[in-house]
Amino acid sequence: MQALLSVSDKEDIVDFAKTLHSLGYEILSTGGTLKILLENSIPATDVSTYTQSPELFDGRVKTLHPKIHGGILHRRNNSEDIKTAKNHNIRAIDIVCVNLYPFKATTQKTKNFEEIIENIDIGGPSMIRAAAKNFQDVLVITKPEDYPLVINKLKNNANTLEFRQEMMIKAFEHTAEYDCFIANYMNGVFHQGMGEKVFISGSKVSQTRYGENPHQKGALYEFEDFYKNTFQTIKGEASFNNFTDINSAVKIATSFENSPAVCIVKHGNPCGFAIKENLLESYKQALKCDPVSSYGGVVAVNGVIDEPLAKEINQTFIEVLVAADITPQALKVFENKKRMKIFACGGAKLQFPTDKIDFKHIEGGFVYQQADFITEEEIKNAKLVSNTKATQKEHNDLKIAYKISALTKSNCVVYVKDSTLIAIGMGMTSRVDAAKAALAKANDMGLSTQGAVLASEAFFPFRDSVDMAAAAGIRAIIQPGGSIRDEEVIQSANEHNIALYFTGIRHFLH
Amino acid sequence: MQALLSVSDKEDIVDFAKTLHSLGYEILSTGGTLKILLENSIPATDVSTYTQSPELFDGRVKTLHPKIHGGILHRRNNSEDIKTAKNHNIRAIDIVCVNLYPFKATTQKTKNFEEIIENIDIGGPSMIRAAAKNFQDVLVITKPEDYPLVINKLKNNANTLEFRQEMMIKAFEHTAEYDCFIANYMNGVFHQGMGEKVFISGSKVSQTRYGENPHQKGALYEFEDFYKNTFQTIKGEASFNNFTDINSAVKIATSFENSPAVCIVKHGNPCGFAIKENLLESYKQALKCDPVSSYGGVVAVNGVIDEPLAKEINQTFIEVLVAADITPQALKVFENKKRMKIFACGGAKLQFPTDKIDFKHIEGGFVYQQADFITEEEIKNAKLVSNTKATQKEHNDLKIAYKISALTKSNCVVYVKDSTLIAIGMGMTSRVDAAKAALAKANDMGLSTQGAVLASEAFFPFRDSVDMAAAAGIRAIIQPGGSIRDEEVIQSANEHNIALYFTGIRHFLH
Repeated sequence: MQALLSVSDKEDIVDFAKTLHSLGYEILSTGGTLKILLENSIPATDVSTYTQSPELFDGRVKTLHPKIHGGILHRRNNSEDIKTAKNHNIRAIDIVCVNLYPFKATTQKTKNFEEIIENIDIGGPSMIRAAAKNFQDVLVITKPEDYPLVINKLKNNANTLEFRQEMMIKAFEHTAEYDCFIANYMNGVFHQGMGEKVFISGSKVSQTRYGENPHQKGALYEFEDFYKNTFQTIKGEASFNNFTDINSAVKIATSFENSPAVCIVKHGNPCGFAIKENLLESYKQALKCDPVSSYGGVVAVNGVIDEPLAKEINQTFIEVLVAADITPQALKVFENKKRMKIFACGGAKLQFPTDKIDFKHIEGGFVYQQADFITEEEIKNAKLVSNTKATQKEHNDLKIAYKISALTKSNCVVYVKDSTLIAIGMGMTSRVDAAKAALAKANDMGLSTQGAVLASEAFFPFRDSVDMAAAAGIRAIIQPGGSIRDEEVIQSANEHNIALYFTGIRHFLH
Repeated sequence: MQALLSVSDKEDIVDFAKTLHSLGYEILSTGGTLKILLENSIPATDVSTYTQSPELFDGRVKTLHPKIHGGILHRRNNSEDIKTAKNHNIRAIDIVCVNLYPFKATTQKTKNFEEIIENIDIGGPSMIRAAAKNFQDVLVITKPEDYPLVINKLKNNANTLEFRQEMMIKAFEHTAEYDCFIANYMNGVFHQGMGEKVFISGSKVSQTRYGENPHQKGALYEFEDFYKNTFQTIKGEASFNNFTDINSAVKIATSFENSPAVCIVKHGNPCGFAIKENLLESYKQALKCDPVSSYGGVVAVNGVIDEPLAKEINQTFIEVLVAADITPQALKVFENKKRMKIFACGGAKLQFPTDKIDFKHIEGGFVYQQADFITEEEIKNAKLVSNTKATQKEHNDLKIAYKISALTKSNCVVYVKDSTLIAIGMGMTSRVDAAKAALAKANDMGLSTQGAVLASEAFFPFRDSVDMAAAAGIRAIIQPGGSIRDEEVIQSANEHNIALYFTGIRHFLH
């Protein structure tokens, strides 16, 4: 029995080789791997000695040889192949353990293009792919984390076809991911990230119980390791829809530096938000906007949940809580809430990834884009276009309203007073209808919009929304501007002594 | 100068080789490619002759040899490499033209796993990747469609580093796509399409002028070739948001067999829909629901636009028209509409792809799921839970309302009368608020909801929406059911003599 070991990542390779040797495998190896095995007194043959062909061009050509690839690829159940192998002194290679030059890690530590190119592995993927193709006869291993499993299978005589088939799938996932990264990297460098092909690849974090609906199978995939390593499940299990809601809620709750913000989301849109002097007060205020929608909602808390806050949250039914952390005392408060789910991601404040790209599935493909961001400058530099100016307090509310509007589905209008969301219209085909629905709801809830501010993620096409805002007592408005009827809109603001600001930057979200 | 040609797809290879030969390239080749070149009197050397190593194991090992890979990989600007190559009789290979065993095509024509496995190319990707890595010195070609471009560059002394770099990117895109397909295929067979890794890859159809907003770069990518080959741009250029709106509008318009349906969409949600005796009537009725939202909207017409329909559409401003086709006379109607865009995809009716999977980006990764579908059985088998039954006409309206509700953002409520959408609430955090907004709007529009039917994509949690429906004159309701308060909901229906049907299947959409 023969095993070929040629690894870039040397982690645990000595122990793995030692065990293979003790199980009776003769070891073929190359370069650095060979060196470390010999230093550790593990008998191993240099691939060059075996092939009688030297390593060439600083290691660019080592294993690309018929004796290696024939040893991997010949079919053990084919008598012709067996005869041919014998005639050419090709010995079967039964295990191929290879991992690849660290292309990705190299791109992350240097801009030296030559060094990056040198870290494109050629021989490695060839061996991995050859071994995977011949999984009928060959076991392929690409990651140190799989060594214990492999050893276990070998020791227990369980190197079955089914096991090799699973390892084959991992192998093709590995080479696919490697070349996806190379192609995306090159398109990033030479085509601003929008090359002729784009590859979106993810690692499964977990299957969800089902997808968006119970008859759909679903799963969560991640780009790096945020969900596996940072996002902690404290209680319950997040559903497919929970993940999309958590995404919206956390993005809003973390949009305000390190403020003690609380955001409540339902069906991907906010229905509660506040930043008060502490999280307890923020939560109490956030809940006021729409306690009906908030029932069964997703609450993102930008900080640590303590016992008093937990007790307050426990007054109603919140399905999902996501926070930087939760104290043991606070967790105890929820111990009888069977359906409640709690997740933590952070130290003192919520931590969440920020991707540079975004994409949406449409039938037959997807639209792909650079992510949308609001900058502090955008709000700071918003142009006053009315005669009236906003007060400092109104400025603060405008900032909150504007950021929320950019993270709410279009068309939306957001009403904020005293750092608290008090009305919101979203996801509708007409902006003025969204405004009407929001104000009607605030009225039903007995919430006064007097003295509130208003934000819209895109321009008001007509003065009607401003007139309605005036009737509702709105004192200041922020929006991109850019309508052919901006003058009418400004005139309405002036007639009603409303402060009106244009940012010049639209934030549609669908 | 030496070129290595080894192609699975023999298209145009003879002409390409002929030209390379006339330009002074000596040709190395293998198997079927060699045979066809020799048959066409193009001088070519068998790789086996050159390497002095025979083709092994029915072609499983042909080119995996140091003389081939050394010939590709050695650095021409490195004197040590040049010396080593000379010492080992390794001649430089300057052009590598390889395309791969048709793995994907094989999976599409057979379930024979052995045949599928045999169509995993090993030698090909190795050569392509080696040539791509050494693009500094080597030109790599993976597709017949690139032969004319390559010939042009070679003839005009324009085989520049920049050109080779572009071909390098194509090469890695090609190998990445190949292994993505293998990995996804294996995960489809063995892990129900939800393996440890999932790969979503797309080919660029076009850059869009910008993304969801002007400060974001955006592009459309497709899985197969629908957008490049079937989706025709008749007038204008679709924006990023147009593509997502077209997706929604066409999905709704094509949900009703071959009916002459017309759907109007704004911000991804429907604001107009009808199926009448012909497209002209359908459009007229569709527009009635919300002419304000429809202004600047996206209209999907499930058929061919003729002149009378075009004239009707031309009464207002529609930004995007998508239809099966448009007659020349009809197109002429819009010739002065500068901002209008027209797309065609179909013969007599709209053609659109139907993906089996769906995915949504969230920060740090994506959620991935089986696509949602409504079946005819689901509606046919809906359970009558009230004392009153729907009439045949109401049944027809229920079907329309229910299908629209599944393709509208949650929470939604859809009111249909006489095969026409007359009110809709969507994308809101509260279902009853969506119902209120829809009915308030219908009232503003002077549209009577008397005798209409109502659909909801998820259950009514309380009887309030049914009570509201009754007050608005609704005669029948269809919804999944499944609330703990279903009894209250049923009771309300019975009190108001409303026919109530439960489908048992939820259709959230976010």
